Amino acid sequence: MHETSAAVIGASGYAGLELTRILSRHPRLRLAALFSDRWSDEEAGTRLPLSGPGAALRYRPLAGSAEVDAEVAFLATPAEVSLELAPRLLARGVRVVDLSGAFRLGDPALYPQWYGFAHDQPELLARAPYGLPELCRAELPGAKLISNPGCYATAIALAVAPLVKAGLCLPDGIAVTALSGVSGAGRKAAEDYSYCEVSEDLRAYRIGRHQHAPEVERAVARYAGKCGPLSFTPVLAPIRRGILATSSLRLAPGAGQADLARAYADAYAGEPFVRVGAADKVKVSDVARTNRCHLGVSADPRTGLAVAISAIDNLVKGAAGQAVQALNAALGWDEPLGLDLLGG
Amino acid sequence: MHETSAAVIGASGYAGLELTRILSRHPRLRLAALFSDRWSDEEAGTRLPLSGPGAALRYRPLAGSAEVDAEVAFLATPAEVSLELAPRLLARGVRVVDLSGAFRLGDPALYPQWYGFAHDQPELLARAPYGLPELCRAELPGAKLISNPGCYATAIALAVAPLVKAGLCLPDGIAVTALSGVSGAGRKAAEDYSYCEVSEDLRAYRIGRHQHAPEVERAVARYAGKCGPLSFTPVLAPIRRGILATSSLRLAPGAGQADLARAYADAYAGEPFVRVGAADKVKVSDVARTNRCHLGVSADPRTGLAVAISAIDNLVKGAAGQAVQALNAALGWDEPLGLDLLGG
Amino acid sequence: MHETSAAVIGASGYAGLELTRILSRHPRLRLAALFSDRWSDEEAGTRLPLSGPGAALRYRPLAGSAEVDAEVAFLATPAEVSLELAPRLLARGVRVVDLSGAFRLGDPALYPQWYGFAHDQPELLARAPYGLPELCRAELPGAKLISNPGCYATAIALAVAPLVKAGLCLPDGIAVTALSGVSGAGRKAAEDYSYCEVSEDLRAYRIGRHQHAPEVERAVARYAGKCGPLSFTPVLAPIRRGILATSSLRLAPGAGQADLARAYADAYAGEPFVRVGAADKVKVSDVARTNRCHLGVSADPRTGLAVAISAIDNLVKGAAGQAVQALNAALGWDEPLGLDLLGG
Amino acid sequence: MHETSAAVIGASGYAGLELTRILSRHPRLRLAALFSDRWSDEEAGTRLPLSGPGAALRYRPLAGSAEVDAEVAFLATPAEVSLELAPRLLARGVRVVDLSGAFRLGDPALYPQWYGFAHDQPELLARAPYGLPELCRAELPGAKLISNPGCYATAIALAVAPLVKAGLCLPDGIAVTALSGVSGAGRKAAEDYSYCEVSEDLRAYRIGRHQHAPEVERAVARYAGKCGPLSFTPVLAPIRRGILATSSLRLAPGAGQADLARAYADAYAGEPFVRVGAADKVKVSDVARTNRCHLGVSADPRTGLAVAISAIDNLVKGAAGQAVQALNAALGWDEPLGLDLLGG
Repeated sequence: MHETSAAVIGASGYAGLELTRILSRHPRLRLAALFSDRWSDEEAGTRLPLSGPGAALRYRPLAGSAEVDAEVAFLATPAEVSLELAPRLLARGVRVVDLSGAFRLGDPALYPQWYGFAHDQPELLARAPYGLPELCRAELPGAKLISNPGCYATAIALAVAPLVKAGLCLPDGIAVTALSGVSGAGRKAAEDYSYCEVSEDLRAYRIGRHQHAPEVERAVARYAGKCGPLSFTPVLAPIRRGILATSSLRLAPGAGQADLARAYADAYAGEPFVRVGAADKVKVSDVARTNRCHLGVSADPRTGLAVAISAIDNLVKGAAGQAVQALNAALGWDEPLGLDLLGG
Repeated sequence: MHETSAAVIGASGYAGLELTRILSRHPRLRLAALFSDRWSDEEAGTRLPLSGPGAALRYRPLAGSAEVDAEVAFLATPAEVSLELAPRLLARGVRVVDLSGAFRLGDPALYPQWYGFAHDQPELLARAPYGLPELCRAELPGAKLISNPGCYATAIALAVAPLVKAGLCLPDGIAVTALSGVSGAGRKAAEDYSYCEVSEDLRAYRIGRHQHAPEVERAVARYAGKCGPLSFTPVLAPIRRGILATSSLRLAPGAGQADLARAYADAYAGEPFVRVGAADKVKVSDVARTNRCHLGVSADPRTGLAVAISAIDNLVKGAAGQAVQALNAALGWDEPLGLDLLGG
Repeated sequence: MHETSAAVIGASGYAGLELTRILSRHPRLRLAALFSDRWSDEEAGTRLPLSGPGAALRYRPLAGSAEVDAEVAFLATPAEVSLELAPRLLARGVRVVDLSGAFRLGDPALYPQWYGFAHDQPELLARAPYGLPELCRAELPGAKLISNPGCYATAIALAVAPLVKAGLCLPDGIAVTALSGVSGAGRKAAEDYSYCEVSEDLRAYRIGRHQHAPEVERAVARYAGKCGPLSFTPVLAPIRRGILATSSLRLAPGAGQADLARAYADAYAGEPFVRVGAADKVKVSDVARTNRCHLGVSADPRTGLAVAISAIDNLVKGAAGQAVQALNAALGWDEPLGLDLLGG
Repeated sequence: MHETSAAVIGASGYAGLELTRILSRHPRLRLAALFSDRWSDEEAGTRLPLSGPGAALRYRPLAGSAEVDAEVAFLATPAEVSLELAPRLLARGVRVVDLSGAFRLGDPALYPQWYGFAHDQPELLARAPYGLPELCRAELPGAKLISNPGCYATAIALAVAPLVKAGLCLPDGIAVTALSGVSGAGRKAAEDYSYCEVSEDLRAYRIGRHQHAPEVERAVARYAGKCGPLSFTPVLAPIRRGILATSSLRLAPGAGQADLARAYADAYAGEPFVRVGAADKVKVSDVARTNRCHLGVSADPRTGLAVAISAIDNLVKGAAGQAVQALNAALGWDEPLGLDLLGG
C-alpha cells in the first residue's frame, strides 16, 4: 500500500516529539522529514526511542522547511511561524495540520487582543476546519489545512458543547478552572518552569486572558448554536502532562443529572476516544499518553449549577494525537489509525 | 510569666504534628500532654524535631484524654470523637479548640446530610464561635469552645466574604474549584493516597457534596449578611501541603477591578496574616509552612464574572496555625504570638 | 497462525497490570484469563485501557488459578504463592513464568535467610532457568519453568557481569547503591508509601539484607565464572517507576576506560534491548515504559575503582517485559515480539 | 546588646535566600545589606516572607559589594567571584564567610583540575579554616575568613571521618553515591533542571569528577590523619532540597557493628546538630529545613564492607545554616544561635 509521506516542522518541542513518536508507528504514514534548529543534523534515534527507519532521520534546520518534499506537514511551531509557513506549503500542494493557534479563531480581528499579532491570512482562516473530530467531523474530509485545537480548548469544548447544545445548560455564565501539567508551557529553559519552582506549588496565570477562551466559545457556538463569553482560569500543576478541567454551567430549568448524562451519552456514542463516566472517576492518569478524553458531569439542584469534569493528555488528545486523528479523517482513513496502541 | 498549659489530642495526624511543633515554640503556652494511640508511650522528640522540654513528653492513649490536666485542649480528632470529648473537657473547665467539623455548622439539622451523623449537642453548637479571626474576630475573646475552620473553608471564605459584603459580587451563583495537597486527606494508609496513585495525577472528588460548602455559606452569610448555595469542587493535587482556591463570582452591575481590589484592601488592612496582591501572583509555595493567606481577584467585564484566587497552607492557616491564632485571640494575646516565625 | 493462550495470575498488582497491557497487544499470545481476588468479576477494560478482546475478560478469584485453561501462566504472586502454584500448573502441562523470587536462588538453603521461608521444591529450583536473556539466553529455549529476575538484580547484573567476565574488574568488593521508584514496593495501602511520606524524601532500606544481593551474585557467577559477596544498598526515590543503579567495582591492574567500554560493547552487540553509552548520559526517563536497559561505565584511575551506571523500568525490563522476552525465547520466537512498541 | 551587622552577597540564589531568612531571625546579627543584580532595588520582603526590619532592605547591585558597610559578609557567589571579593573585604576589616569552593582545597595546585581556574590567593587558602564545626571546631574561634563546606562534602565527611579516625574502616577504597535535590544545582533557567526533565527521572553526573571529592579527602585526612582517593558519584533526584549519601567503606579486621556505632556516638556526643541512629531510619525529610545531620552505619561481615548513610538539607547544614554555625563559633557564641528554631 502507498504510504503517505509526512514531515514534522518544529520537531524538538514536546508536541513535536510526540508527533514524531506517533508518526513513526503509523501504519499508513511514513516519516519523511524532521525540522528542528536545535537538534540540527542529529539522528532522531538518539533523541527518542524510535523503532524503524524513522530512527535514522536527521533533523534539518527550520529554514528549509517550506520546501519540504512531503505530502503532509505537521506544524508544531509558534503561531506566527505557522502563519508564515502554512500558505507557502499549501501553495506547493502540501497538506498542512497546524498545531498552533494561527488558524483557530474565525475572526482575524480577534488576533491582536488574544495573540498579540495582526492576522494577515483571513481567507485561510475562513477555510481552515477545526480539527476536533468529535464536534466538527463533517468539515474534515478532504481538508487541505486543518487547525488543530488547543489543549485546554479540547478538554473544555468536549465537556461544555453537548450540554449547551441539548439546552440543558445555559450558554452564558460558564466558568472554567483547568489545571495543566508543565509540558503545556512547552520545552524551554525558564526559571518559572524549573523543578524547584514548580514542585509543591500551584498557581493560576493569564486569568481571563488566555487565548483558549475565545477558541472554546467559537467551537461551542458552532456545535451548539450559541456560547456566551466564557470565564477561564488556567492553573499550573506539578505534573508533567495532562489537563483536568472543571467547567461550571448554569442548569436550564428542569434539567437534572439523568438528562445531562444522557446528553453526553448521545453526543459521544461510538466515539473511540471519548469515555463518559461518573464525574468523580475522571482522572488524568487514566488518559495519560493516550488520545482519550474522559468526561463526567454532576448536576447540583441545590446550587442550580452543573460541574463537568474532563481529562486529556495535553500532548496527545490536546496536540499530537488529535492532529493525527484529524488528518486520518481528512484522508478518509479510520480515525484511530496509529493511535489505538498509544499508552502501552 | 505564667505559662498556660496545653494538650494536643490526636497528636499523630498531620494537623496534630503541626500543632505540636507550633505549641512547643509558643512563648506563652506550655506543651503539657500529647495523646495518640498510635504512638502511645513513645517520646515526642523521636517523632518530630522538637527543641525544649516538649521533646521528652510521651504520647498517651486517647482513652484518658478527657481527664487531661491542662488549661487548653486542642482536638485534632474526627468530628464524632470531638463531639463526645468537647463537653467532657468543657465540664472540667478545660478550654477547647476543636479542629474537626463537629461545631462548624450552625444548624444541627445539617449534620446528617453533610457529616453523616446526628448532632446531639445543639447548645454547644450554638455557642461555639467560628475561629476565623479575620472574619469573626469579635466573637473570640473569652471563648471557651472554639470551632476551628476547615482548610478549604478558610481559603474560600477569606476570598469570597469581602466581595459579597461590599456588594460588588452577588451572593448567588458562586462556583469554586479548589485544589488541595494530599495531607488534607489526613495521615492514613490508603492506596488512593499512595505515591504511585497520586503522583502525575489530578482528580476531583465529592463534587457538590463536600462538607466545607455549607461551612463557607454560613461564614460568608454571617460576615456579609447573605450567601446563596455555593458550588464547590475539590481537586486532589500532587503536592504535600497547600490549597489554591479559584472562586468565580458574578459581578454586581458597575463593579470593576479597582472596586474589588479596594474591598480586599479595606477588609484586610492591618491583618498580619493576609496579603492582598495580583491574582496571578498568588502561589501556594509562598504560603507553605506559614499562617498566611495570599489573595487576589480579577474582574472580567467581558464575562461579567470575577475570579478570586486564594492560597493557604492547609495544615497551618487551614488547621494548626489558625487554631493557635484563634486561641491567642480568645486569651487576649496578640494573634501572631508563636506564629510569626513559622516558615523559617 | 495459532495463538498461544496466556493467563496472568495476580493481575491487579503493578507487575500484573503491566503484563496484562503487554500481553493484550502481543501478536502471538492471546490473553485467556486474569486472576485477582481484589477485582474479582470486574471487566479488565474498566481497570486499564485495553484494546481488543482482552478488555472484556473478567478477573477471576485466585483460588481457581491452578486449574486455569491456558498454555502459559505468568505468576505475579508473592514467592510463597508461586512456590505452591508452579508445581501444580507444571503438572498440568502449563508453561510457567514466575515473576517472584521463588525460583531465583539456586540453593534452597539460602531461602530461610533471604526470603524468610524454607524452600520445599529443590528439584524445580535446580531446573528453572534464569530469565535474563542477555546473560543466560542458552538455557531458555524450551524451558517449562522460567524464573524471572528481580528488578534490582536485572539492572545490577547487566552492569556488573561483563566487566567481571572480561577480567577488567575484580569479583570481590563490589558495592552497589540502587534507587528505585515506589512501584517497586508493589501496590499496597501502606503509610510508608503514601504520597506525603515519599514525596521530597529519600531513604535507604534493607541495607545489606535485600534478597536481590544473592540473586545478583548467582547470576554474575554463572555468567562470569565468579562473584564475591556484593554489598547492596537500595534507596527509595520519589518516582513512580524506574531504577538507577550505581555499581562500584575495583579495577583489575591495567584496566582502563577503553577496555571497560569495549567489554560492554562486546557483551551487548546486537542486543535489541541494551544500549551502551556514556555513564553520565544514562537516565531513568529514557527507559521508562520500555523493555530497555541503558548502561555506561566510568573508570577512575585516581581511585582504582570503576563506577557502572544502569537504568531500567522496574515494571518492564525489571518484571513484565522481561518475562515476555524470556517466554519469547523459550518458545523460539523473536525476543522483541510484542515488546518493540512499548513506550509509545 | 550590640548587634553585629551582616551582609549577604549573592542574595537571590537558593543559598542566599536561605541565608537571608536565617539572618533576619538571628538574635545577635542584624541584616544590614543584600546584594543581587537580579533583584536590584526590590524590597526583600516582596521576595521572601521576612519579619522585622530586614523586610524593608533593598537589594543592591553586586558591583558595590566590596565596599559594603558591615562587620560580616556572607559570600553566596561563584568561586571565582569569591576569590576576587574576599581579599578586598578582608582588607577593609570585614569578616568573611565564603559559601563557594574558593577556599576549600588546601593546595592551590588542585584548582585547575577540579574548579577550572588557577588560584591566585595561596596565602588566604592556607589560613582559611574549614567551617565544619563537628570536625574542625578548634580552628574557628576568631577566624576572619571561613571556608564553608560544600553540601555533598558535609554529608560525606561527617559520615566517613569518625570511622576512619577510629581505625575501624580503611582510608582507601571508599566509594560514595550521593543523591541531591535540584536546588543543589542553584537557581537558574536551564532546561536540564526544568520540571518536565527532572520529575520522574534519576541521573548521575560528573562521575569521579565532582570537586567535592578532593574536599572530602582533605577534611577526612585532617580529622582522621589519612584518607585515600575517594570515588564519588553524585545523582540528581527529583526533590527540591536534601542530600542522602551512601558511603561504602572497607572494614578493618575485627571491626563490627557495635564498634562503628560507638565511634559515631563518641564523635558526636553533645553535638547539637548531629543525630546518630539506625542506618535505615535516616531520612531526608527528617532533616529538611533544619541544620541537622542524621547518620547511621551498617557493618556487613558477609561482604567486609560498611555502609554509612547520612542526610542533610543541602541549603541549611549544606550551606546557609552551617555558615551561620561556623560564624557563631568564630565569634565565640553558642553554635545553635539563630539555628535552633529552623524547620518550624
